[in-house]
Formats: sequence, structure tokens, C-alpha cells
Amino acid sequence: MAALPISSNGPGMVRLLCTRALRSLGDASITLPNGRSMDVPAENITFSMPAEWAPHQGCWIAWPRRHDVWRAAAVPAKKAFTDVILAINRFEPVTVVAPNDLWLEARAALPDSIRVLEMTIDDSWLRDSGPTFVEAKITSCPKPAIRTLLGMDWVFNGWGGLYGSYEQDKLVAAKVCEAEGLPYVSTDFVLEGGSIHVDGEGTLLTTEECLLNPNRNPGLSKADIEARLKRFTGVSKVIWLPKGLYKDDDTNGHIDNFACFARPGEGASLWTVL
Amino acid sequence: MAALPISSNGPGMVRLLCTRALRSLGDASITLPNGRSMDVPAENITFSMPAEWAPHQGCWIAWPRRHDVWRAAAVPAKKAFTDVILAINRFEPVTVVAPNDLWLEARAALPDSIRVLEMTIDDSWLRDSGPTFVEAKITSCPKPAIRTLLGMDWVFNGWGGLYGSYEQDKLVAAKVCEAEGLPYVSTDFVLEGGSIHVDGEGTLLTTEECLLNPNRNPGLSKADIEARLKRFTGVSKVIWLPKGLYKDDDTNGHIDNFACFARPGEGASLWTVL
Repeated sequence: MAALPISSNGPGMVRLLCTRALRSLGDASITLPNGRSMDVPAENITFSMPAEWAPHQGCWIAWPRRHDVWRAAAVPAKKAFTDVILAINRFEPVTVVAPNDLWLEARAALPDSIRVLEMTIDDSWLRDSGPTFVEAKITSCPKPAIRTLLGMDWVFNGWGGLYGSYEQDKLVAAKVCEAEGLPYVSTDFVLEGGSIHVDGEGTLLTTEECLLNPNRNPGLSKADIEARLKRFTGVSKVIWLPKGLYKDDDTNGHIDNFACFARPGEGASLWTVL
Repeated sequence: MAALPISSNGPGMVRLLCTRALRSLGDASITLPNGRSMDVPAENITFSMPAEWAPHQGCWIAWPRRHDVWRAAAVPAKKAFTDVILAINRFEPVTVVAPNDLWLEARAALPDSIRVLEMTIDDSWLRDSGPTFVEAKITSCPKPAIRTLLGMDWVFNGWGGLYGSYEQDKLVAAKVCEAEGLPYVSTDFVLEGGSIHVDGEGTLLTTEECLLNPNRNPGLSKADIEARLKRFTGVSKVIWLPKGLYKDDDTNGHIDNFACFARPGEGASLWTVL
């Protein structure tokens, strides 16, 4: 699987892995032949990551799996996850993934309206291991332009190696996209979705502590990383906060643990009085 | 999960398990709230199984798993399956399911255009373990009528107990329907999809050797079984062939091993000259 060219103006082709046919929007409907993969000249495809509050088609959540990291064998955690799942499902479809040994448990714990898919996982944080959904616009080949939801398949390395094994979570993004029948792009960029926030209008919020940590992309400079963030999410400005939550050694300062955009131009953040 | 009322005119409700919203066809579009399950009065829902040759949206196939029942560690079998998958994919999307320990193998063996989903399976015969897709017509609640593709989740008992374990294959039909976001109905009727053929115009072809075998539905008479076939597939006539293929002890005479409809009113069959 070809990696996405990393320079925002770089040469080369972008390979979209499409298990289902793409359709162009608008009246002039074009369907690509039976969901073949598509190699698109890099200059003809752009990506745009919508804001957290943009309308979306559904939500993916993983069932708690690591019984060792939750108290009381994860029973309270599963109750809390269920409450969150039901709250979200009041407004949109929710898909819960569970490894096979927990599939029946999850299926029985959740109402019929929740879709429960089998998926082997190391840990239960799909925002980090799963794809980041962006809108892709393909401006040639074929015409008219195609706009499609697309999964960005970052390289997942277990939060910089926090856990010994993350072989299953590395596959989660691809598996989610295949299950949704959405095209996806394999990148060679280490990133967890929880380390970035966007406002949907061109600004991205992240931390130096996480993204510049040598346990993520040691060969890349801050400028290299910023260029990739801009290329892959379509933003024009990256706001770098120096550090994340105090002593957040698990994620090395994920932005989603302490700050987010509330709406364009306005942020919300945790505040601790010592 | 409520079982489908078994009598074609029986009272009670049919529970559709819907993880995604159903939409009625036609101009007057109705969307049920976020894919809740739906209890429909039995008299208000009918099912119709399309013929083999009806246009369809896609095909599901399982990757060969039981390496012990194929020669040469299933290498030739996997090549043959791949050839079939590629032939079908010339015309329609194909989804291949593979258990997690074979997911990467299947993903690597197949082109990007094939969707590969993780699914734990005992054996690789989805026509038997998976759902039978039928068209459901719901004539009330809400109006206008809803027509939807729907998965019939038969009870799978491992071909009457041919293999010791079929705990995973019992779940396949539900998992396929959830992955497709299609509603499905849990029945209490033991059946494999490969034991029936329909012509899409009201006739079903099957064998007494299989369907009347006491290892399937020992408590049901021939008339009981015929009533269920009519109710669940919408046919008005069942053609009972006495026996299946000679010495087909694996499936107890599945119809799909030796006969099918070629078009309405015309059949094709294997013929052995002794």
C-alpha cells in the first residue's frame, strides 16, 4: 500500500484504497468501477478535517478490553461506556467494536439499536487507534469533482511505545474503513487522533510535548510535522501548546485530555488551582 | 431477541433488529429514529426471497479456514477462492470475512477492491452459516410502506452436528447483518441457506433428505416446515426432491450441491452416468 506523499506540494500519486464505489456528488453522478482503488495525482486531491461539532453519520467506540487497567474488572467502566454510548445514540448511529471473546457480552449489554462489530483490539481508544475521518476532494479523474468521506490511516505505535504490544491496534483504522466501505489512505506519519483538535475553519490545536516527542516521529522536524498536519487535515494554521496535562505520561500530553475548540475562534480548557 | 412467529398467519409481533435507520422507498421518505429495533405486528410484514440471478448489491465470502479439511494446507483452496472472488468482483463489490489470525493473509492475498472484514468463523460456508437476504415489506407503522433488504437469521446447528463445534458460525448471520447495517430477524428454525433455492417467482426447491432429517428440526412435521419456508421466503409452492447428491453425508443432501433454478420454470441439475 503506497504511502501518501508527505509534502503538501509533493509529486507522486495518492493511493485511495476503496472497497466500495465512489460516487461524485451532484446531479452528474459518476460511479467508479466496482470500488477499485484509485491512484490520484497528489496535486489533485485535498483533505479537510471537519470540526468536532460538524454533523456526522455515526460514532465508533470500542468496548473496554484491558480488564487489568480498569478497577473492579472493568465492570464500572463498561457501565460508564454504555451510558456514553446510549447518550450518543439518542442522536446518531453508534458502532461498538469488541474482540470476539467479548462480542456476546457487548451485544447483550447494549440495546439492539447499537451496531456491535467484531474486532480484535489491544486497547479501547478508537480516537487514537482508529482513522481520522476527513473530507477528500478529488479535482480530476474523473470529472466532475468527487467529494468523499475518507479515513486517514495514521501509523499507530501505541502512544510512543507505552505498551509492549499494539499489533492489533495498528490494524484498527483500516478495519474500520473497510467495515464502513469508505476509502482510506495509508500514511507513514505517526499520530493519534486524540493529539489534535481542529476548528473546521483552518486551525489545528496540538501540543509540542506529544507531537515533537522523539517516540513518535524522531526523523521529522517541527516544520516537517506541521507541513504534514496541514496537508492531511487541510488546516492553514497550527497552534502549538508547549505541554499537555501535568504528568500525562500515558499519552505524552494529548490535547484531547485538556483542551478543545468550543466553536471557531474559541477554546475550552481544563484549569487546575494548586 | 424475540423469535419470528412461525405460522404464516400467526399472531404476535416480529422484532426487526435494526442497527441503522430504515428509510421507506419513494418520494415520501420516512426515517425511523436512529435505527431502533422495531416490533411489527406479524400480519403487517411479509418476506420475499429474490432469485439467485436478481441484481444484488454485493457478495459475502469467507476465507478458507479449516486447514485440516483442505489438501496442501488450503493453499490451492485459497487460490481457487481468490479466483472466484475476483470473477465476482468484476461485477459487484465483494466482502471477504477472515478470522483475525488470517485477516492479514487474506488482506494481502486480495486486491484493494475487495473488502476484508474480521470475523471469527468455524467453517467457510457463508451461504449456510450466514443470513438469507430477503426483501421485507412492512405495510403499516409507519406509513407509507417500508421495503427493506433484511437478513433472515436461521438457527445454524453445524449441518445437523457434523462438526463438534459451531459456536462461532452460529453468530455469523447476525454479525454480517450488523456489518451491513441491515435489519435482521432471529428465527427459531434450523436451516442452512444452501439447502434451498428459489426462482424469485414463488417456487422453492429443496430436499426431504436434508430438511426432514431429524438432526435439523425434529419437532416439526413436513407441513410445519413447509409453512415456515413459505412464511420466511414468500414462496407459494415448495418442490420436495426426495434425496440429494449420492452419499452427501456432509450436508445431508443440500440442494445447492446438485440442482438449481436456471430461470423461472427451468431447472439445472447434475447428472451422473453409472
